[in-house]
Amino acid sequence: MVGLDGWKRTNMLGEIKKGLGGREVIVMGFVRETRDIGKLRFIILGDITGNAQVLLKGKEEIARFGDFTKESVIAVKGTVKENLEVVSGAEIVPSDIRLITKAETPLPIQVYGRTDALLDTRLDWRFLDIRKPKNALVFKIETTIEMAMREYWIKNGFLEIHSPKLMGAPSETGADLFPVVHFDRTAYLAQSPQFYKQMAMCAGLDRVFEIGPVFRAEPSNTTRHGTEYTSIDMEMSWIESHEDVMEFEERWLVHVMKRVKETHGEEIRKMYGVDVIVPKLPIPRISFNEAKNISNKAIGKTGADDDLTDEGERVVGETINRKDGSEFVFVKEYPWSKKPFYHMRKEDDPSVTKGYDLIFNGVEITTGSQREHRYEVLIHQAKEKGLSLESVKFYTDFFKYGVPPHGGFGFGLTRLIKQMLHMENIREATFAFRDMKRLFP
Amino acid sequence: MVGLDGWKRTNMLGEIKKGLGGREVIVMGFVRETRDIGKLRFIILGDITGNAQVLLKGKEEIARFGDFTKESVIAVKGTVKENLEVVSGAEIVPSDIRLITKAETPLPIQVYGRTDALLDTRLDWRFLDIRKPKNALVFKIETTIEMAMREYWIKNGFLEIHSPKLMGAPSETGADLFPVVHFDRTAYLAQSPQFYKQMAMCAGLDRVFEIGPVFRAEPSNTTRHGTEYTSIDMEMSWIESHEDVMEFEERWLVHVMKRVKETHGEEIRKMYGVDVIVPKLPIPRISFNEAKNISNKAIGKTGADDDLTDEGERVVGETINRKDGSEFVFVKEYPWSKKPFYHMRKEDDPSVTKGYDLIFNGVEITTGSQREHRYEVLIHQAKEKGLSLESVKFYTDFFKYGVPPHGGFGFGLTRLIKQMLHMENIREATFAFRDMKRLFP
Repeated sequence: MVGLDGWKRTNMLGEIKKGLGGREVIVMGFVRETRDIGKLRFIILGDITGNAQVLLKGKEEIARFGDFTKESVIAVKGTVKENLEVVSGAEIVPSDIRLITKAETPLPIQVYGRTDALLDTRLDWRFLDIRKPKNALVFKIETTIEMAMREYWIKNGFLEIHSPKLMGAPSETGADLFPVVHFDRTAYLAQSPQFYKQMAMCAGLDRVFEIGPVFRAEPSNTTRHGTEYTSIDMEMSWIESHEDVMEFEERWLVHVMKRVKETHGEEIRKMYGVDVIVPKLPIPRISFNEAKNISNKAIGKTGADDDLTDEGERVVGETINRKDGSEFVFVKEYPWSKKPFYHMRKEDDPSVTKGYDLIFNGVEITTGSQREHRYEVLIHQAKEKGLSLESVKFYTDFFKYGVPPHGGFGFGLTRLIKQMLHMENIREATFAFRDMKRLFP
Repeated sequence: MVGLDGWKRTNMLGEIKKGLGGREVIVMGFVRETRDIGKLRFIILGDITGNAQVLLKGKEEIARFGDFTKESVIAVKGTVKENLEVVSGAEIVPSDIRLITKAETPLPIQVYGRTDALLDTRLDWRFLDIRKPKNALVFKIETTIEMAMREYWIKNGFLEIHSPKLMGAPSETGADLFPVVHFDRTAYLAQSPQFYKQMAMCAGLDRVFEIGPVFRAEPSNTTRHGTEYTSIDMEMSWIESHEDVMEFEERWLVHVMKRVKETHGEEIRKMYGVDVIVPKLPIPRISFNEAKNISNKAIGKTGADDDLTDEGERVVGETINRKDGSEFVFVKEYPWSKKPFYHMRKEDDPSVTKGYDLIFNGVEITTGSQREHRYEVLIHQAKEKGLSLESVKFYTDFFKYGVPPHGGFGFGLTRLIKQMLHMENIREATFAFRDMKRLFP
């Protein structure tokens, strides 16, 4: 069918419940399953809000309305009948059914019920994979998270910006860049909106946020890295130090986690078997040195002395959770040797930055800091890190004509979701994942 | 200074008004201007909310607080004094002032007052250019627009998605693509989220929206095109035809324009000299043929018979505005010859698509349509347009396993702002513009 032939949807399938008995409805959805029991045919019809049962009685009716392959799309006109044997307490007795598009058989992966398809196969058929309510829930949660974030920001005087993803020069280290053929030149894909959110501070926009894609040409293949992901970024002016950024972040996070719990807490418990826990403030803060000691004590020396390994982050998360009952922990004052040139260093110990990471259930989800806003110091730090002053000149120029002390953070949207739902792989939290090997779908 | 040395901002400068007399405040901002009159020095201090006057009395005080170059960043502690000679009705008499960062002189472009710098020079120093309240207003409006859009969508059951910008194959025509060096392969930057918002429909997400960057390697240099811009996209399932999409769009647009008018109407009138007009519904709808006739009558034949030129859009906009008093007009049922393969064609006249454009003050800001969801027809249309079936296979596969009738639109954020504020150039509505030649800042 081309359209709906004049039918208009009256209800979502999740609304077909006890209490709606006798109502005439038109519903639309995917045929999840059909089952014949004696002379009855049960159709489980699904949409984004849930499933409902459609009951066909007798051979004649079954013949009249036709046979539907799994995942075919149909529209049903009928009457709601309360039925306590159905989980939702009601089913639909149809007066008419229209087949809109018939699904080919067999389905490449199973949609209804458990599937044993490998993750890679599921990602190949991601549009079918997302039809599973458990997977679709991710995008409901994502929508709620982002809206709650923006609400909190806007209430606090932040402006939304969209910074360019085509860069004339690298935004971070210069490593892991994707080159773009840009007419007669080479451009690069932005690894972060860092330079541009700082430009916004130098432009007097006071406080800004951005939610958008960033690109990292990392040839790694892990459960927490992708070559493209959604970065959540903010930057605020007039701070005393990175402590102000952390204080903002934790209040913002409480607002977001509360909203997720209120809106989806029950569904998350049902589908993922986990509780959404709103963090108690203040979130524990430990220094990098303390974190490193915890890691060394628990798992012995791993990685460089100035860095925390993935495994190190995990045991730090576990230890703090056991000790303080917090899923979140701020690890602050990372060594300068491991942080980018634009982080500010401590006055009394320049080997240490005014930077921090936020660890959630053992995985880093945020990196934040106060930024170095003093032109001469910034130039000095860029030199110390071996950067070409020419390539960062457009950025360092921002700091010549008056700039407020400022700081901010970058936050991984899909990492937040992965850690919140105790997922094993960030691919499950991404609409269409990108890594070294995957460019489809 | 490194931080604020214990000072905390109590007020934004826009709040320093009559009624606040006697209040002790700490404010922070950019020195817009200093003026000496006799023994008095007036400092105009600005932040994102507005300007306030700081008054230094006598040589001793002037000497104590120092001399500030224009655009230097300072913090001021003082008492608000009502003064009817100041526009805001109040000024600040400081007890202490701290210089945070001193601006170099001279400024590359003037920030306070009128500037005669060329647009290109202003864009080179965009962070200074945005310090002008008229230019900063764009980002306040943008924030309001996007939030209003999302609110309306979410109230209507839409989910937010983030589709990949790294594509394994072209999303639209195959022309104007930016190639990306993607490890051992070539990837392309997404020209639109088209295939992915349709994937969301095939995934049963029902209704989705996305606000994000798109990339067009167009070697053009106009006042309305960029190589990267923020695209506003939505897609909805269970439509009868493109008419449902237009009906949704116009209600959504009314919600957005109303919000802009309420929030910024007065400032827009003051700074841009234009009124924000909330469209009356229904927005006039004319067919492509009617539009072409209007254009031909007004300016003679221009461009191809199956297309409306920029000039044609302008006169169509003007004509409808004169006739119906509407700044907006839907032009619908464009010729199939000019539209992409995924647009649905009319049953009774396959030379015509179920597609439309929305013209705002003479410039196209939206293209929408019902999409072809019938697998065989889609394949046929792809062939007819000369596409390689192999390169779009990942997309056409979406339509094999049940899909609701659906449609949607893409909408240019900066074009909306440009047309709303009667700007001459889309560059003025963009945070950091990108075109063939510009990759900095």
